[in-house]
Amino acid sequence: MPRQGLFLSLDGIDGTGKSTQCRLLAEYLRAAGHDVISCVDPGGTPLGQELRRILLLGRHALSPNCEALLFMASRAQLVAEVIRPALDAGRIVVSDRYLLANVVYQGHAGGLGVDQLWQVGALSTMGIEPDLTFVLDLPLEIALVRRGRPADRMESRPRDYHERVRQGFLAEVKRRPDRRILVDATPGVEEIQAEIRRHVEAILARRESP
Amino acid sequence: MPRQGLFLSLDGIDGTGKSTQCRLLAEYLRAAGHDVISCVDPGGTPLGQELRRILLLGRHALSPNCEALLFMASRAQLVAEVIRPALDAGRIVVSDRYLLANVVYQGHAGGLGVDQLWQVGALSTMGIEPDLTFVLDLPLEIALVRRGRPADRMESRPRDYHERVRQGFLAEVKRRPDRRILVDATPGVEEIQAEIRRHVEAILARRESP
Repeated sequence: MPRQGLFLSLDGIDGTGKSTQCRLLAEYLRAAGHDVISCVDPGGTPLGQELRRILLLGRHALSPNCEALLFMASRAQLVAEVIRPALDAGRIVVSDRYLLANVVYQGHAGGLGVDQLWQVGALSTMGIEPDLTFVLDLPLEIALVRRGRPADRMESRPRDYHERVRQGFLAEVKRRPDRRILVDATPGVEEIQAEIRRHVEAILARRESP
Repeated sequence: MPRQGLFLSLDGIDGTGKSTQCRLLAEYLRAAGHDVISCVDPGGTPLGQELRRILLLGRHALSPNCEALLFMASRAQLVAEVIRPALDAGRIVVSDRYLLANVVYQGHAGGLGVDQLWQVGALSTMGIEPDLTFVLDLPLEIALVRRGRPADRMESRPRDYHERVRQGFLAEVKRRPDRRILVDATPGVEEIQAEIRRHVEAILARRESP
């Protein structure tokens, strides 16, 4: 049975306005009559919220491998409980981050094997990939200023870590240009949103034409 | 640098007296002058205890993939915090369960891919395998009677699940007869312990001879 739903994810370094763009995109699609659910990875389920607290609040000094696997576990629950049922029901899913972030933060930036993380990711996602991932990109200097709230455990890592994160996202966009779209996040919120919508409209139009 | 420590694990279906055997083995080795640490997987670290509660107390309805990944995450922390430092320091580690259980329970019995779980396991263990694993085996009828305490979330699964667990352990012993030893757990505690000690003495003797 072909999958009916549409799976969109937004990703990128912190401070690019990713969460705002997710919200605006979901609102836009809902206003256009689509059945949309939004989620956030890690999180999005009661278990995911519990794991998100462990991951981001820093009560435990997690080993890099453990950290990577907790992100994977949280996503596995999110896929089973939320994303797969929504896609099976023909809905549009808008996810704030997904497996790509896990590969970039723990692999490209954190030093674990990138290919190994994609492999482990298959157990985490049950093979469910976004149809389109928007990677919001900004120079680090601008991103750090824009964040505008205290840093969590990931965000408070050193500058060269965040530079590796940025370069990791850029490298992964190049590996799958068919499904990952780099979005310049230096313009204003409305302009960025307009670009994202153009791509989403295009994929919706392709699906609706016979 | 060659690893100096010795890594022993005990595994098998519930009700075989595994934990008792672990305790007796550690006591015996300590009495013989060895530097021994005992641990339990899942568990063995503050994070592991938190994950163990999530896994075994059943507050969340975990997806099979999430469950498998939480076991993997707990073990990753156990290896980084406890097992690897102990082996690097030349100590003997006695672990109550390890990756093998994850592969057998979630793969052979739970239906996830066995090869995929071994692959994901490499991220969880950083490649650290037991030198010797004792798989305690009992017919299910006897194991269920011996348990003698209320069943946790794993243990309360149906009988055919536990039969697949048992068969999974038997199959995995056949795959690595050099490192996995099947131990008949029908005799009394002392007799089982004596057999385990014979194998441990043999590996220690091989290591001490030039």
